[in-house]
Amino acid sequence: MDLHEMAKSARNAFYDLSVSNISVRNSALESISAQLEKDKEIIFKANAVDLMEAEKQGLAKPLVKRLFFGPDKLKQVQEGLHSLAELEDPVGKTSFCNEITEGLKLYRVSCPIGVLGIIFESRPDALVQISSLAIKSGNAVLLKGGSEALHTNQALCESIRKSLKMVGLPEKSTQLLESREDVRSMLKEDTLIDLIIPRGSNSFVRYIMENSKIPVLGHSDGICHVYIDSEADPDTARRIALDSKTQNVSVCNAMETLLIHSDIAGNILPLLAKDFENAHVTVRGDERTRQIINCEEAEEKDWSTEYLDYIVSIKIVDSLKEAVDHINRYGSHHTDSIVTESKENAAEFLSRVDSAGVYVNVSTRFADGFVYGFGAEVGISTGKIHSRGPMGLDGLMTYKYKLIGHGQTMTDIKAGKLQYTHIRLNEDCPL
Amino acid sequence: MDLHEMAKSARNAFYDLSVSNISVRNSALESISAQLEKDKEIIFKANAVDLMEAEKQGLAKPLVKRLFFGPDKLKQVQEGLHSLAELEDPVGKTSFCNEITEGLKLYRVSCPIGVLGIIFESRPDALVQISSLAIKSGNAVLLKGGSEALHTNQALCESIRKSLKMVGLPEKSTQLLESREDVRSMLKEDTLIDLIIPRGSNSFVRYIMENSKIPVLGHSDGICHVYIDSEADPDTARRIALDSKTQNVSVCNAMETLLIHSDIAGNILPLLAKDFENAHVTVRGDERTRQIINCEEAEEKDWSTEYLDYIVSIKIVDSLKEAVDHINRYGSHHTDSIVTESKENAAEFLSRVDSAGVYVNVSTRFADGFVYGFGAEVGISTGKIHSRGPMGLDGLMTYKYKLIGHGQTMTDIKAGKLQYTHIRLNEDCPL
Repeated sequence: MDLHEMAKSARNAFYDLSVSNISVRNSALESISAQLEKDKEIIFKANAVDLMEAEKQGLAKPLVKRLFFGPDKLKQVQEGLHSLAELEDPVGKTSFCNEITEGLKLYRVSCPIGVLGIIFESRPDALVQISSLAIKSGNAVLLKGGSEALHTNQALCESIRKSLKMVGLPEKSTQLLESREDVRSMLKEDTLIDLIIPRGSNSFVRYIMENSKIPVLGHSDGICHVYIDSEADPDTARRIALDSKTQNVSVCNAMETLLIHSDIAGNILPLLAKDFENAHVTVRGDERTRQIINCEEAEEKDWSTEYLDYIVSIKIVDSLKEAVDHINRYGSHHTDSIVTESKENAAEFLSRVDSAGVYVNVSTRFADGFVYGFGAEVGISTGKIHSRGPMGLDGLMTYKYKLIGHGQTMTDIKAGKLQYTHIRLNEDCPL
Repeated sequence: MDLHEMAKSARNAFYDLSVSNISVRNSALESISAQLEKDKEIIFKANAVDLMEAEKQGLAKPLVKRLFFGPDKLKQVQEGLHSLAELEDPVGKTSFCNEITEGLKLYRVSCPIGVLGIIFESRPDALVQISSLAIKSGNAVLLKGGSEALHTNQALCESIRKSLKMVGLPEKSTQLLESREDVRSMLKEDTLIDLIIPRGSNSFVRYIMENSKIPVLGHSDGICHVYIDSEADPDTARRIALDSKTQNVSVCNAMETLLIHSDIAGNILPLLAKDFENAHVTVRGDERTRQIINCEEAEEKDWSTEYLDYIVSIKIVDSLKEAVDHINRYGSHHTDSIVTESKENAAEFLSRVDSAGVYVNVSTRFADGFVYGFGAEVGISTGKIHSRGPMGLDGLMTYKYKLIGHGQTMTDIKAGKLQYTHIRLNEDCPL
């Protein structure tokens, strides 16, 4: 089937899925969990094919590791499905109600966005996470996973579609794309597809944005900062800096640059330098940092580099304002943390830093949809439009305005027969 | 000053405006109202220059009328400013709170988007409406009005900036662009500008979307429908159809296509044909319509045409489903209304029609930010991403996640020293 036909059938599937009952959508999630169990030998075998192919092609070890889908991953995925089934229905929530004129009420009610095109990397469990979020939120999805995971993805998708059919939901609401050509075709279907969510490298996300009229929610770099304020508790500061940098260096919410207030730098930097040395982290410091500790020289480009590695850049600043300005200028608006005991400084940092996540006394590693309690995430948005930060169920919703009257006309308003009342009400939409 | 410098200074102004107190932002609105009063002779004189120029260039009468800014318009604009000042602060509202682990709380808090580029038509009062919505919501704006209104816009903008300065807010948060060249330059500043909102023709909005990496919220056509259900009250149906078509034909929320259930068409169509004839509306009907009344023939392209004129296309359908399918296929996802006494049919229409506004027994002419009680609107979005329908204060907000802890690390989570609690709380962010 060609991409245009796939997108058309996904659109029709969306219209049915979007009005389906939450109990049916939840039973689809439970049914997927059971079906994956039944089909597990097929899935593991498909994964073995992908793994063999990957090793033959000399794929890097960490990539092969991410590609592996065994009993443990299956169990994780099933747990994810159960916990998602327990979350409340995001569809049909009234977030605003206004009486416009006598007997005429306006309701803003949440509804799914429509057909989503989601492009993700070669972790097969991501396929189940994304499709289950889509099913729960009433959205149809066209999925394109990493080509290394093709056989595993096909097997997983097959089980999901069997389950959808079994509970009476349109199976075409979850469809798998198989080639890059499909992705290129998808980008052109701006009348059938409502939103593209690309996960992957910065340059890949830019490519998608430049080649489609469909709105794109993607994240670019993750250049996260920790700022150690003059009022920081030194122990807390060391723990947070170390955790943010080293707990997992290859993820977008790892710290890349550490900012330290000059009042506290002399005390804390020598200790931190030891911490980083023990953790095999290379330090690149600005001039004032290098006056205190022995390290490499940070160049201008270090401030805007996402290392994803055991490297940290360090800069000494003279004020909270200087730290905020640095973050807003060089950061990627992802997640930034202040370490401080001062409530005033914390509040100022939270207000002024222009990022999706702004933290006080906690590691940047907490920026994640599962950690936030969203069940899972389809991505982390560093844009500001529509969704910001980890995108879970809420991130996949839009709303419509429902206006319910009994024959009101603008003619009567203009003639003064009806007056605007504009009374805010706290009630749910009855239809 | 060149556009890049303007955008840079707007960005800096945004950082200060975004953290300003609501009482200061409200006093700016009151101060603008007073300043416009003081400067009114200058403004009226500037408007006279624009009007003279417009007549010299032979601008169409309705356009000249929209350009006029006299004492009545001033009073309207001032009333708008007062009512906007009375609305609650959209900044800093907590919409979600979750305890992540012991002592670690996540808050989703509303904040302004940043720097907005807004391009609007030649109605000078729009300049005051848009800038006041931006000030109230803490956003900076680069404004480009219709070139016919240049002198009026300059005078209005001058008064606004004087007022901002007077109350201690950054005057560079409201800036006026003066040429099309400026607009082209603005579209390139994707690191300084967060959102473009174009108002104007469909082709103009498309041009903007195709020429910028900055997210665009615009509306394309307004192809609105009224569907007269088999269970409609005939009188209500006639009043709503007539009002939706004729109360103002040149606006995006006017009806362009009328759908009628075949069970009721025989009774109602002859009466409606009279109504339309009396209102000088030309009817273009499908074959079955023309079997009942005498009218022009509707062609395929009529179903996707925004007439903005005294013309209506009429189609007879055999079911609610056929009506919904027609609307989802040919409509522009703006506003569509069902006339029915059946609660079930109303509910199904509201769920299945994929538009920003879905109405029961009320004229499509109610789709408007002021009418909805949003104070005013910067535009009406027919997209589904971020904002849908009339964009008032809420439409100009985004959010950030604030995470407040006391030294929590991912290392402790992974080591099992800390467990996820994920307890939904109903509290406001303290910082």
